[in-house]
Amino acid sequence: MLTERFKKGDPRALARTITLLEAGGEFPEDLQLLPRKATVIGITGSPGSGKSTLTDQIIQAYREQGLKVAVIAVDPSSPFTGGAILGDRIRMGRHALDEGVFIRSLASRGALGGVSSKTLQVLSALEAFGFDVILIETVGVGQSEVDIASIADHTVLVLTPNQGDAVQAFKAGVMEIADVFVVNKSDLPGADRVVRELHATLTLGAMLDWMPPAVKTSAQKGQGIPELLDALRKHREHLGAEGLKQRRLNRLKFELRILLEDWAHRKLKDAESQLPEVLSGKRSLQALFKGLI
Amino acid sequence: MLTERFKKGDPRALARTITLLEAGGEFPEDLQLLPRKATVIGITGSPGSGKSTLTDQIIQAYREQGLKVAVIAVDPSSPFTGGAILGDRIRMGRHALDEGVFIRSLASRGALGGVSSKTLQVLSALEAFGFDVILIETVGVGQSEVDIASIADHTVLVLTPNQGDAVQAFKAGVMEIADVFVVNKSDLPGADRVVRELHATLTLGAMLDWMPPAVKTSAQKGQGIPELLDALRKHREHLGAEGLKQRRLNRLKFELRILLEDWAHRKLKDAESQLPEVLSGKRSLQALFKGLI
Repeated sequence: MLTERFKKGDPRALARTITLLEAGGEFPEDLQLLPRKATVIGITGSPGSGKSTLTDQIIQAYREQGLKVAVIAVDPSSPFTGGAILGDRIRMGRHALDEGVFIRSLASRGALGGVSSKTLQVLSALEAFGFDVILIETVGVGQSEVDIASIADHTVLVLTPNQGDAVQAFKAGVMEIADVFVVNKSDLPGADRVVRELHATLTLGAMLDWMPPAVKTSAQKGQGIPELLDALRKHREHLGAEGLKQRRLNRLKFELRILLEDWAHRKLKDAESQLPEVLSGKRSLQALFKGLI
Repeated sequence: MLTERFKKGDPRALARTITLLEAGGEFPEDLQLLPRKATVIGITGSPGSGKSTLTDQIIQAYREQGLKVAVIAVDPSSPFTGGAILGDRIRMGRHALDEGVFIRSLASRGALGGVSSKTLQVLSALEAFGFDVILIETVGVGQSEVDIASIADHTVLVLTPNQGDAVQAFKAGVMEIADVFVVNKSDLPGADRVVRELHATLTLGAMLDWMPPAVKTSAQKGQGIPELLDALRKHREHLGAEGLKQRRLNRLKFELRILLEDWAHRKLKDAESQLPEVLSGKRSLQALFKGLI
């Protein structure tokens, strides 16, 4: 039934499913088995780098190609709201009435900003719904940047001409997650310097079989977007069928790891009240552990 | 049977049990339930800070009090050997024939140098055997320093007058794990400066209810050991029965967490070969996950 409504593209069926998943409900088995075709693009970068405006432009560009686009915005600063945050609707307002566009804000997992299993289930539901392109925008703090590279087919790291942006990325060890660099706000002075810095660094690590290009954009002015889409297309060609399959297997492994770890942490929490019995020698830790698994 | 031999203090029963545990064998249930009285002291610090020589002196001092002492040396640089490393025997050679002393080197868990569940089981076996004091010496790299504070009743962080030793400890975020600081090699110039630096820093964070003392030692010359034991005794008094109980509950929680996480990672490994079936839509990830737990 839900499957049929998904196949027909009923947006209320999608919204209901996502609300269910956010509330911790089961992911309906038949939905999970629907065929999927989406390209998943991760967009990450420091706060203020203009990711949301860039995302808006990417939506627009793919819509002009007739593709259906979904956006998941993972926002570590917001508690789990179970719904869209008004801000996104405002920023991406011009797509609000477009049935080919779906935008959803989700909370991240814990303080480190990692991607949660709920986020991955919502992503999976969007794929099952038949979107062609799914953008995942994460605020570039802590774990979320590294996680996104485990999930996306293509990862875009957004920098700005702001002195030290690239340096920060190096320090945080996130340079290597980028398949494509974007130097956004490139109408500001310093954009070419950042591009040069990136090239210099990437040439140093010249063992790479894919040299991530650095694309200058001005999302605000709508500049550089075709070049970005071109860079993404080239990366897809570089991956090939085998490379893409490998990325998707990595994502499934990542998702399974989170499911197992979440399960382990729930079990640990459940068992905590029984530890005093172990301490007093009434029960062994092994016996407690075996009772959990 | 094994229990009886443990109660009688048969060292071959202990050696056999540890060999069994190292090989991945089950921890015999009855041994786990034996009463235990050991004080567990973690000793950590950078390579070259003289931890082993200090450990040797601590053994000696407790032996003079008539206490039975065991040492676990966690060495992240060695592969899992399943037995004692000759070096320890040489460095701590004077205790080699003392039946009241037991020394064992164990490999750490993975590259990060964390403490493994095997190490925790060996620790538990040593407690069950009836040792009064168990010293765990970890090389101060990566995870092992943080882990040790989750395991020990008292954690000793060993620094030297070497310029920058204290600074490194700050950077690595391990200052807060110390219950007692040791400034070893204090016959070298700069020891008083390090002590002053420590005091200055600790006073800044003056919210602490326990102000970790900084004890100057020269392990090589056998100096400062009574003062160190005195500092440990004072920390024990500070903890009190309730504080000690809390630490031991924390250790059990830590151990259970490792057991659960190891279990989760084994399951993930087992399931990896089935991920292509999920990718091709033959099977859902949820179904695979549920088959694992």
